Amino acid sequence: MSQFMNRKEDIVMEAIDGALRASGGSLSRLDGYPHIRAVVRADWDKSRVALVSGGGSGHEPAHVGFVGKGMLTAAVCGDVFASPSVDAVLAAILAVTGRAGCLLIVKNYTGDRLNFGLAAERARAFGLKVSIVIVDDDISLPDLPQARGVAGTLFVHKIAGALAEQGATLDQVAAAAERVIRGTRSIAMSLDTCTVPGSPKEIRIPPGMAELGLGIHGEAGVEQIPFENAARAIEVMAAKLAPAMGDGPHVALLNNLGGATVLEMSVLANELLCSSISDKVRFLVGPATMMTSLDMRGFSVSVYPAGSGDIAALQSPVSLPAWPGCHAVAAPHVIALPDGLTPIRPIPSSHPATAAFLRRCCEVLIEAEADLNALDAKSGDGDTGSTLAGAARALIGAMDRLPLADHTQLYRAIGLELSQTMGGSSGVLLAIFFAAAGDAASSGMSMRDALRAGLERMQEIGGAQLGDRTMIDALQPALDALGEGFDAAARAARRGADHTATLEKSNAGRASYLSADQLRGHSDPGAEAVARLFERMAG
Amino acid sequence: MSQFMNRKEDIVMEAIDGALRASGGSLSRLDGYPHIRAVVRADWDKSRVALVSGGGSGHEPAHVGFVGKGMLTAAVCGDVFASPSVDAVLAAILAVTGRAGCLLIVKNYTGDRLNFGLAAERARAFGLKVSIVIVDDDISLPDLPQARGVAGTLFVHKIAGALAEQGATLDQVAAAAERVIRGTRSIAMSLDTCTVPGSPKEIRIPPGMAELGLGIHGEAGVEQIPFENAARAIEVMAAKLAPAMGDGPHVALLNNLGGATVLEMSVLANELLCSSISDKVRFLVGPATMMTSLDMRGFSVSVYPAGSGDIAALQSPVSLPAWPGCHAVAAPHVIALPDGLTPIRPIPSSHPATAAFLRRCCEVLIEAEADLNALDAKSGDGDTGSTLAGAARALIGAMDRLPLADHTQLYRAIGLELSQTMGGSSGVLLAIFFAAAGDAASSGMSMRDALRAGLERMQEIGGAQLGDRTMIDALQPALDALGEGFDAAARAARRGADHTATLEKSNAGRASYLSADQLRGHSDPGAEAVARLFERMAG
Repeated sequence: MSQFMNRKEDIVMEAIDGALRASGGSLSRLDGYPHIRAVVRADWDKSRVALVSGGGSGHEPAHVGFVGKGMLTAAVCGDVFASPSVDAVLAAILAVTGRAGCLLIVKNYTGDRLNFGLAAERARAFGLKVSIVIVDDDISLPDLPQARGVAGTLFVHKIAGALAEQGATLDQVAAAAERVIRGTRSIAMSLDTCTVPGSPKEIRIPPGMAELGLGIHGEAGVEQIPFENAARAIEVMAAKLAPAMGDGPHVALLNNLGGATVLEMSVLANELLCSSISDKVRFLVGPATMMTSLDMRGFSVSVYPAGSGDIAALQSPVSLPAWPGCHAVAAPHVIALPDGLTPIRPIPSSHPATAAFLRRCCEVLIEAEADLNALDAKSGDGDTGSTLAGAARALIGAMDRLPLADHTQLYRAIGLELSQTMGGSSGVLLAIFFAAAGDAASSGMSMRDALRAGLERMQEIGGAQLGDRTMIDALQPALDALGEGFDAAARAARRGADHTATLEKSNAGRASYLSADQLRGHSDPGAEAVARLFERMAG
Repeated sequence: MSQFMNRKEDIVMEAIDGALRASGGSLSRLDGYPHIRAVVRADWDKSRVALVSGGGSGHEPAHVGFVGKGMLTAAVCGDVFASPSVDAVLAAILAVTGRAGCLLIVKNYTGDRLNFGLAAERARAFGLKVSIVIVDDDISLPDLPQARGVAGTLFVHKIAGALAEQGATLDQVAAAAERVIRGTRSIAMSLDTCTVPGSPKEIRIPPGMAELGLGIHGEAGVEQIPFENAARAIEVMAAKLAPAMGDGPHVALLNNLGGATVLEMSVLANELLCSSISDKVRFLVGPATMMTSLDMRGFSVSVYPAGSGDIAALQSPVSLPAWPGCHAVAAPHVIALPDGLTPIRPIPSSHPATAAFLRRCCEVLIEAEADLNALDAKSGDGDTGSTLAGAARALIGAMDRLPLADHTQLYRAIGLELSQTMGGSSGVLLAIFFAAAGDAASSGMSMRDALRAGLERMQEIGGAQLGDRTMIDALQPALDALGEGFDAAARAARRGADHTATLEKSNAGRASYLSADQLRGHSDPGAEAVARLFERMAG
């Protein structure tokens, strides 16, 4: 599969420039492409401790997405999954460090440690105060003394960033960062590998399996385990995290590794907050895409025993779209259903003339069943006649509970009956027609105007216009002519219905998928039904 | 491939509950699972016009992610890619609509139109003021009168939402929504199909091809075109959008359909803002994941000729992580590289005794080349000897430009030479060692303390401890013994180097990947080099 990129060599520079163009002027970059790719807060005045992070690219929105007031001062970007050079890191440090000094936040990968480490030494030779912290939150390789740095790094960025913004000293900011690092634990799971730009995808995880214990560079997880479902996946990870968690309250960070859907991430959030560690998880950051491994269909959970000061720092507002905020966890709040879902049944009343009229109309439709089905078979699935006849039979059966003496209420009652007995789009549309006509009638309109109001609303919702080969081709001219009496209306409806047989195109409903050849010579069954109804009324 | 879900039937409910748990109490839902899945602003007091949207699920974060002050009042969720029921929509309308009324924002799909339309009629029968707008921004099917509603819907949510929040009337909000709909045009492209939960993935787009003109329900695009690169992809889409754009300024919305990486989206943002329509695109929303088609590796571009009032509405702050904000577009701001990237060269000076000492040290390493290579071949790639000898030769060659008479400067100068001539991790680590020792010496420390400071920094950055089978196993005991003279230091270094041959595990560097059997009986070449250096100094 292709990727949305141009030359592989340019991807990081182009992505940075894209982020800058879209930042509303809040980000700048250092000169020095292609070697030096460093993004800096545009409003930085060196008045406080600077925070510099970065590493290989492919983890977006980390780290450029977290550059801004209250988080990082600068991000240094290497090639995809490769550390930036010493010179690039040094350039960033020199560009942002004032008298308050600079903290480097480095994920625990050899290349990053060395290049950030040497850049720090070089910067110190200029008399700058530079401290360095190494994030090693991954618990998936317990025997490895050099644990990897993964998404828990975000806790460090946010808490140290908030402190720095408040004017804390470098020692204070570094001590807080160290404290967060000591307390943070992360673990990841994935259902698929990631695709490195310009390289073929490695097929490594068989269907039905998941990898547990991943870094963020596409390396294989510590183990492959059968994947059952989201609940079990979270439980496996919770079991790994639990022994490292004390009894106190924690904040969790739920991170999309890039390729999980937003839908899946919400399901995982639900599971995490119902899991065996949920009693300890009092705050949540995410679910969100924060520290990715390109398009890996996986996620990570990080936990940290945050005190109230930490929570305040995590919740302090930043205007960075990549930071999803940190919210107190709460059980879903469920509010009672409103009254009115059970439709108001009108009070039945009798009116022999209306009942007879209605019954005649229904009989027309019942008699037309076979003809209309045959017409529909030319352009649809041949059930229009049965649908209308079924609705007519149901209406006859409901005659005793209709408010026959109250014509205003009667429209709405017919609409309600149709919506409950007649399936498909046509049932809904006729229900809308009668409901809207009832609304209009209740505001004092004449029958003709009320029916026209119903037609208008049906067209608004259904989208069909005159000439679209629907019942409207008969109904609209009939209602237009109704002022001149039922005979005129019946003639207009018939002309309209017959005209549909000449229409070679349908713009609405199922018939819109058919060709002119398939349509020509056959009337629309809905229009035909309307014509027969008006003809009976006239007769 | 599996997906992070439990039962397919529960995915929408579980995702909604996950969103609620993670919302910090800002969202509620209506009772009525599984039939009614409607999310409501928890702080809603019905004092203003309510905005209700929704549709099928699978488009997350739309629509639940946009429920909150200043955007939607409620979102009604159907099954994946299926419209919610009339009852569900009606429940949401009844739950949120006060005297100011309610606007339904509906994407132009038959099911949504009908179900939202009939729910509106039912709500009106209760005397509620309900208006409905149909979003039809997709331009990919110009001949279809019923254009689909896609990501341009976000413009409607935000602009109508801001107006409603300001207290505008229902007519004003609906008119604004209609105006935005009339002006909004969208088009999408994808490199791959989406995966519907619980269904196998449809393979439809061959490698090297892209689909242009997609909806958001996994349906095939209007055409398949060869995919060249990101620039060309944007140009094809810009050419489709351009004829529909007037001359005035526009806002663009760059939407991830779900499966494109953040890196790719930034590249696409860069291209869009350099494209043939870039002169008209003055504001940008995104790039962000807003209206998805599950995990589809694609994106969409929407444009709207926003006036200043619209821009103010789009920029009015909301605390919804799913809304990325709307920023003025600007060319990347590039700041000059800071001074200091070219290392400060010390002033050369002569000091025959120091020169002789340094030369002797270098000669030790040159003489040891073959031995150290042989040792390294047991646990690495056999080049430690050559690396050290190469650095030693380079140092001899640099003798004339070293500040030999200024020992404080000399450490840093050696560090600088090593970092420039010696590759790999060991070069960086030795550079850090000497640079840090120079720092310490310049603050007045003794040679021994300065070297110990260098060692400490090297360990901090490199992460190796005593016993990890590195040069530190010789260097640390030697420096510890240096107070007793060079002889004692040499003996300690030798003991330390020899001891590495008994270590069956390495915790740092490449040898950490080897087994005990591969390591046993061979000293670490770095430790051996240190021992030979101290032995020569003592001699």
